Amino acid sequence: MTTRREQTSHESSELILRAAAELFAAKGYRQTTFADVAERSGISRGSIPWHFGSKEGLLLAVLERSVDLIRAELIEEPGELAAPKEAEAGFDRLMGGADALFAQPTTKLFVTLLVEALEPGSPIHGRYVEIHNTLRDHCRRWLERLPLPPGLSAETLAVTIIGAGIGIHQQWLLAPDRVDPEQALAALRTLVTAAALPTGE
Amino acid sequence: MTTRREQTSHESSELILRAAAELFAAKGYRQTTFADVAERSGISRGSIPWHFGSKEGLLLAVLERSVDLIRAELIEEPGELAAPKEAEAGFDRLMGGADALFAQPTTKLFVTLLVEALEPGSPIHGRYVEIHNTLRDHCRRWLERLPLPPGLSAETLAVTIIGAGIGIHQQWLLAPDRVDPEQALAALRTLVTAAALPTGE
Repeated sequence: MTTRREQTSHESSELILRAAAELFAAKGYRQTTFADVAERSGISRGSIPWHFGSKEGLLLAVLERSVDLIRAELIEEPGELAAPKEAEAGFDRLMGGADALFAQPTTKLFVTLLVEALEPGSPIHGRYVEIHNTLRDHCRRWLERLPLPPGLSAETLAVTIIGAGIGIHQQWLLAPDRVDPEQALAALRTLVTAAALPTGE
Repeated sequence: MTTRREQTSHESSELILRAAAELFAAKGYRQTTFADVAERSGISRGSIPWHFGSKEGLLLAVLERSVDLIRAELIEEPGELAAPKEAEAGFDRLMGGADALFAQPTTKLFVTLLVEALEPGSPIHGRYVEIHNTLRDHCRRWLERLPLPPGLSAETLAVTIIGAGIGIHQQWLLAPDRVDPEQALAALRTLVTAAALPTGE
């Protein structure tokens, strides 16, 4: 059972995280101050370090929260004995998950933090590498169940597919009236199916 | 014939542009000051506005310079009457061009400026939209020469392919020892070929 004090602390953390995520997405990480987060969240400025230590700690916590939301869309894992037909259906659900992810503000935040993550010595660089590895591994496990042609490894194809997901999302963020992400993901699915199941079995 | 004075002015512009491009890529646009650019380029701080007006003007000029370098890799256009075989070879050269682009520092700069371009009211937003349109149009013109199956439009597939290029590049920037961009582009080429030329003609 949580005490009243713990519950309030958890609620405060949540309010701070949500405000910080919105501000990082809108103004960028570096331009955001504890004062901005305090104003937007309604939590006193002095209590933010109590919850998250430094601004870097807050950035890491915001990132973990967005990863949890992304993971929730992609939890399903292939069974050990999945047949190609089941694997194809699973791969379809994976692509459907990507489509749902695109609409979440936290996914935009994930993109805008990428630039921060590329910096040498960035506090989130290592975590970003891990997250990308997790996404590729997840995709690879589904692809390994499909009858891929010789010369096309599930490992490499996972880079291509996750890459397409990232790049389609960014084109859509940039020009939402010109880019239809759902159609582009469907085209990606058609390409993979044509390569993996060329005889239409 | 250029006068001595024009030549010097052109040389100064080039030095400023190169220094600014390096600094924007390393520290980000907002963190870079005219003083930083002056120090790195060896050109006096006061003459930078004379060349580029504002910091926004400098950002736009840096962007145009990186676009020129990208365009130089992708100039080739398909002929009106290109046969599928020629179109396939052309598409191969397009993918080879992407591969060469990845190694250029200016392409990394193009990625890091994306976050700037996503901001509402950003001075480079409109230009970024145009550049992405140009890349997709270029890719689409090659795809239109390939015998794509029904239900797969060249327009949509161009979003998927340019997206894959963008996302593969970013995964490689993040984890160069884990991601092989050349292999991932080759896998993309295999997928497109399998879908466009399914009978191996």
